[in-house]
Amino acid sequence: MKLATLKDGTRDGRLVVVSRDLSRACGAGSVAPTLQRALDDWKRAAPPLEELSSRLNRGAAADAFPFDPHLAAAPLPRAYQFADGSGYRHHGELMKRAFDTDNKIGFPLHEPLMYQGCSDNLIGPCEDIVLAEEAWGIDFEGEIAVITDDVPMQVPPEEAGAAIRLVMLVNDVSLRNLIMPELAKGFGFVQSKSASSFSPVAVTPEELGDAWRGGTVQLPLRIHLNGTEFGRANAGIGATFTFPQFIAHVARTRRLSAGSIVGGGTVSNAEPGVGSSCIAERRAQERIAYGEPRTPFLKFGDRIRIEMLDAEGRSVFGAIDQSVAPWRKA
Amino acid sequence: MKLATLKDGTRDGRLVVVSRDLSRACGAGSVAPTLQRALDDWKRAAPPLEELSSRLNRGAAADAFPFDPHLAAAPLPRAYQFADGSGYRHHGELMKRAFDTDNKIGFPLHEPLMYQGCSDNLIGPCEDIVLAEEAWGIDFEGEIAVITDDVPMQVPPEEAGAAIRLVMLVNDVSLRNLIMPELAKGFGFVQSKSASSFSPVAVTPEELGDAWRGGTVQLPLRIHLNGTEFGRANAGIGATFTFPQFIAHVARTRRLSAGSIVGGGTVSNAEPGVGSSCIAERRAQERIAYGEPRTPFLKFGDRIRIEMLDAEGRSVFGAIDQSVAPWRKA
Repeated sequence: MKLATLKDGTRDGRLVVVSRDLSRACGAGSVAPTLQRALDDWKRAAPPLEELSSRLNRGAAADAFPFDPHLAAAPLPRAYQFADGSGYRHHGELMKRAFDTDNKIGFPLHEPLMYQGCSDNLIGPCEDIVLAEEAWGIDFEGEIAVITDDVPMQVPPEEAGAAIRLVMLVNDVSLRNLIMPELAKGFGFVQSKSASSFSPVAVTPEELGDAWRGGTVQLPLRIHLNGTEFGRANAGIGATFTFPQFIAHVARTRRLSAGSIVGGGTVSNAEPGVGSSCIAERRAQERIAYGEPRTPFLKFGDRIRIEMLDAEGRSVFGAIDQSVAPWRKA
Repeated sequence: MKLATLKDGTRDGRLVVVSRDLSRACGAGSVAPTLQRALDDWKRAAPPLEELSSRLNRGAAADAFPFDPHLAAAPLPRAYQFADGSGYRHHGELMKRAFDTDNKIGFPLHEPLMYQGCSDNLIGPCEDIVLAEEAWGIDFEGEIAVITDDVPMQVPPEEAGAAIRLVMLVNDVSLRNLIMPELAKGFGFVQSKSASSFSPVAVTPEELGDAWRGGTVQLPLRIHLNGTEFGRANAGIGATFTFPQFIAHVARTRRLSAGSIVGGGTVSNAEPGVGSSCIAERRAQERIAYGEPRTPFLKFGDRIRIEMLDAEGRSVFGAIDQSVAPWRKA
């Protein structure tokens, strides 16, 4: 099934079930008022949500209405955790070449690279990325993320996948000119990763069918910048670490609570021609090829679209489709 | 006023108002079921909570009952954000000497050092610190933390203090033998900072009176390890950065949502004789004095107590008083 959160003026929005083709939705308030509340009690909430989904997909939901992604908040407008990994080896290698020119930062390949991201304020799919300065080097990062149920401490990777309840897309907005100073401090990204944006719907692994294999989504992530294709790297290719491994990494020293978001990192393939899921990668490649980066970071007004199509060309999660806008004092 | 969360089998517990002397409590369900809900709508919730507090302190609350910190969860058993700073210069300098022997990590003194901590699972004051391995180098860190209201992006430090709603104590449990590898990665502390523990009550800045000055609490933080005094550094001395500066640092590139926890870092004074608020500091001093650390990190069964007394010797926040216990598979 596919779930979304509609903005209704409250902090957590209201939970709706969305049809497989993303055209229609119906309220899920009879099951849980918000997605977090459904996740808090998933065993109880999932069966009636599945029943609503089935009715909606049969065209038998009496209270169905058109689903408009512009009215969607992030599936979790605020979450108790966002732990983001860097799963794609090609991305890691390019980032190291681009940013870690002094070779000061350890990028181990034998264990996951992860950071704790901010989760108190997550952005809807069509909302602006509001930032104060273009000079920060504003970049997008196209990623897959999962939402977990409760995860016990010390869960082994082979059991961690069973805790994945939902899958969605993320734009992990990154401020490249603030990243290197924060990397050098070692304390992670507090200023250089501003609020992230999420796809209109979150989807159960079961709904993904064959595309959910090997602990990730085996489909290309289509990125467009101002209407021009920027990348179509396949999320199923080149992942050194998968979601079950990331979850187990976090759970080594603590348990995770239901509603934790775990990101899989900027999707990146080594294959030439598929492009990139962030500008920094393309700039790194340009530096290697031409001695200097040529593609600028985002400017106010730039528009970024992140979407995943299934084998039949249908949008799986709906599109993150948003512009960069200047912050103004309220 | 003083607020606490009693464990009631739910994920967020139930909100109670606690008397100034910490002896009695009364339910606050008529105002808000949980502390997060009160923070979500603080302007509406604070006046009736203050009224309950005033009635309780006058001995006029009919439904008052004895307050038992063993029944308390963390004031926020799960929160949408925990951003922890390192505000005390003496702590930073000792940690650099102790851990950053290759001089690879930048510890700037002109801007705050902060990391995003896990907040999906926060531990009550008398609950065990459950961990799988003593070999991780289990350490406590005695800190002050604040809980904020909504904070706008780009708030200047001189305005950020007005968003502080509550103050509490934290034991920011740190796994020292996992810290240096994570520092070297640059991505912050995912495994090396397990779930933190919080004092029984959270207190409004107004309730602190004269002790709340200069953006922090001007009182010694008393640390006992297995019943023996370990430290009594004054949180008002030696702070290079204060809470308003930490909040403004986080808000540079994003807004903070109500209920965000911001930590002030391990309280540390340069004055000899006041001891330390964590074992790693004492070990660093031992290494400087004797060439090697002598105090071991925590073992299973060790008991750590963190408390702050006011000028009249009365406990302000109640005590964090907890033991380290081995994790066992459920």
